Amino acid sequence: MLDVLKRHVWEANQSLPKHGLVTFTWGNASGIDRENNLVAIKPSGLDYDEMHVEDIVVVTLDGELVEGKLNPSSDLETHLVLYRTFPDIQGIVHTHSRWATSWAQAGMSLPPFGTTHADYFYGEVPCTRKMTPEEINGAYEKETGHVIAETFRLQDPLETPAVLVHGHAPFTWGRSPKEAVYHAVVLEEVAQMAAHTIGLNANAERISQQLLDRHYLRKHGKHAYYGQERGDTKG
Amino acid sequence: MLDVLKRHVWEANQSLPKHGLVTFTWGNASGIDRENNLVAIKPSGLDYDEMHVEDIVVVTLDGELVEGKLNPSSDLETHLVLYRTFPDIQGIVHTHSRWATSWAQAGMSLPPFGTTHADYFYGEVPCTRKMTPEEINGAYEKETGHVIAETFRLQDPLETPAVLVHGHAPFTWGRSPKEAVYHAVVLEEVAQMAAHTIGLNANAERISQQLLDRHYLRKHGKHAYYGQERGDTKG
Amino acid sequence: MLDVLKRHVWEANQSLPKHGLVTFTWGNASGIDRENNLVAIKPSGLDYDEMHVEDIVVVTLDGELVEGKLNPSSDLETHLVLYRTFPDIQGIVHTHSRWATSWAQAGMSLPPFGTTHADYFYGEVPCTRKMTPEEINGAYEKETGHVIAETFRLQDPLETPAVLVHGHAPFTWGRSPKEAVYHAVVLEEVAQMAAHTIGLNANAERISQQLLDRHYLRKHGKHAYYGQERGDTKG
Amino acid sequence: MLDVLKRHVWEANQSLPKHGLVTFTWGNASGIDRENNLVAIKPSGLDYDEMHVEDIVVVTLDGELVEGKLNPSSDLETHLVLYRTFPDIQGIVHTHSRWATSWAQAGMSLPPFGTTHADYFYGEVPCTRKMTPEEINGAYEKETGHVIAETFRLQDPLETPAVLVHGHAPFTWGRSPKEAVYHAVVLEEVAQMAAHTIGLNANAERISQQLLDRHYLRKHGKHAYYGQERGDTKG
Repeated sequence: MLDVLKRHVWEANQSLPKHGLVTFTWGNASGIDRENNLVAIKPSGLDYDEMHVEDIVVVTLDGELVEGKLNPSSDLETHLVLYRTFPDIQGIVHTHSRWATSWAQAGMSLPPFGTTHADYFYGEVPCTRKMTPEEINGAYEKETGHVIAETFRLQDPLETPAVLVHGHAPFTWGRSPKEAVYHAVVLEEVAQMAAHTIGLNANAERISQQLLDRHYLRKHGKHAYYGQERGDTKG
Repeated sequence: MLDVLKRHVWEANQSLPKHGLVTFTWGNASGIDRENNLVAIKPSGLDYDEMHVEDIVVVTLDGELVEGKLNPSSDLETHLVLYRTFPDIQGIVHTHSRWATSWAQAGMSLPPFGTTHADYFYGEVPCTRKMTPEEINGAYEKETGHVIAETFRLQDPLETPAVLVHGHAPFTWGRSPKEAVYHAVVLEEVAQMAAHTIGLNANAERISQQLLDRHYLRKHGKHAYYGQERGDTKG
Repeated sequence: MLDVLKRHVWEANQSLPKHGLVTFTWGNASGIDRENNLVAIKPSGLDYDEMHVEDIVVVTLDGELVEGKLNPSSDLETHLVLYRTFPDIQGIVHTHSRWATSWAQAGMSLPPFGTTHADYFYGEVPCTRKMTPEEINGAYEKETGHVIAETFRLQDPLETPAVLVHGHAPFTWGRSPKEAVYHAVVLEEVAQMAAHTIGLNANAERISQQLLDRHYLRKHGKHAYYGQERGDTKG
Repeated sequence: MLDVLKRHVWEANQSLPKHGLVTFTWGNASGIDRENNLVAIKPSGLDYDEMHVEDIVVVTLDGELVEGKLNPSSDLETHLVLYRTFPDIQGIVHTHSRWATSWAQAGMSLPPFGTTHADYFYGEVPCTRKMTPEEINGAYEKETGHVIAETFRLQDPLETPAVLVHGHAPFTWGRSPKEAVYHAVVLEEVAQMAAHTIGLNANAERISQQLLDRHYLRKHGKHAYYGQERGDTKG
């Protein structure tokens, strides 16, 4: 069981540089075994091409070390808050991918300008509020998780499996580490196209609710009709 | 006959990621056998590197399945409307390529700012009107085809073998699946350059009618003198 | 002799896609043997990876065919005018590279914003005036050459070995086909950086005459001290 | 000893094109042996793929040749001033990387818009003042070093290991040639994201002092907790 989780998490981490989402070690993927409440995550500061499956660190949902010789990602506490708060997610990815990070730095939520966005994110990808000095000086990584959780108080995290942390960078998630990577790729792509869209037309309009619904529901939920299986979320 | 069509459609689909036009499965190419009115198209949601020639789905011009075990692209109905409306086209490509999609999201037609554009598109590449809630909630993919057809009521689709669907993405076409791919590449290239052009000069002027004519007719029609054969449309 | 020229021209053409300067067949390089007044140029519309040395077409300085079974580039007449007008150049390159073409489409000369520009171009890279309907409808390619020549009436073409043809695309040249390619790469690079520069600061200033002189003369002329040989223009 | 230094400098130079930081020969890396006050640097104008370890030039801290048959980089004197002025640095990199150079051409310091910046640069990356005609016409490369030194009079060069030279391009440094390369990559990345940030939001705010402190100190100094070793500066 744990070996499978570690392998999936290792594969998810390996795919981040392949998709051009990370420079050096600036990104991490994790996964959770919901039955045993065990979380597997990238070790901190390790190069992707020097990382082996056995380097993946396993901790409990409270962050106690279960397996691994290396320090876990310094963002571990953010991942743990998200797993505790969003019971349906099973994989998380954090990157500093260029365009999504630029939106986060601009402090702007990412509007749904087109069907590419609507195919995966049901509405805008929110940018969190700024963190307070107390949150930053306190348990910073845990508070980052809390601010994300706060942002999703009224929003289903699986309908919008991504967030922009203000002045920082994106987190994405999904039903598996692989799906979290998938969403990280989509986010970067739509973040880039949205930037070009407002570059071309500062008054570009969001797509209509009807078109948003149509495209989102074409790929998600019981009436989905995209792909080879019903409910196929892969795209 | 059908095997050749399927192979050409498979090759056209394979070339989409090679040209950097698609992320994941976000694009599809089709072709038509005009003698037998059979359309071959990519299966829905399949990765390009897992797709074999035998996976290509064949349907009649009305969409009835002729050959194939997989679901056809969910955009099939759009392709079929275009084949029924534009009798001279024999290949269609749909992508979410970045720059063309950004223009579609901005709701703007692509003006002919230079000779690169004029070499392949005789005038601006139009952006469709927004679709109505009724069209979106109805037979959406078919209505997408109708809105494209409406856009070309007064325009020759082979003189401007591309369209931007408002809030969505581009479709291109040609006398073969390969030519439709070619036009998808050209469209993305001129969409990028046009964005940079207005970024540099918000009042950039379209090229003159004389220059548009000269470049378009240098490559097309009976007086063409580009390439190794007269009437060579390849570029 | 002719074999060497043809090989150099073939190599220059092959290097265009390697440097990311051309899409499909949208570019051509030529070279001249000044002793015998013979010009070698890419055949029209041929894919770079299907082109062999023996496909290179050789013509006289007046355009009469000397060697080759294929049609020469449709831009041949522009090249010939430049060889006849600028006696010191021995290689010419034409591309539709993205950023240089965007400046040409914007109808703007490329200002020297930094030392990268000054290292190779002694002052702004000029954009030609618009061509008249008569020039466009007449001997278009030859007139393109004349408009470039007119632009350089008061400017040394080897001090600024590049031009932007209004609404069209760049031409570059040099003391060999290889050097013309080199200048095409530099032009694209500085065109991109200049666009970003004015994107960051609409009032960005050109570099001072002193800095322009210092950098240009560091690499060119008898007091050059860059590289391993005096007068080394390679960079 | 010298062989190790030369190998490290050679490797640093080789990694510049691999990271996409240089076109042709437009960049150079150096390193210093602080015990013997010997500086190793790239030879001038040599292609990276034709450069061997034995081509690396070694000079004293005053620029006297110790080893090597080729001319050293024409930017040698700038490197030497920096080594003499900043006693803790042991590697320097100069490139004309696109985005950092565009900020330098815009004459703008690079503000810390996000945590990616704060992870490596403790505050804005300064742009130098313009150099005077006297400095440009005099010992230009040495004066470039003096202007950089002047810019860091009140700033710790290891806390902000990068500078933008006005109208020219960036220099970065670090505790080794490899770390200087690392900082050149980071600089280019944050320069690109900062440009996109102000493109999205002309009024984008710098990150707060608290967030800057938190991220910088997470990776640097005795309380660092990123990576596998305390004080790990690699990222």
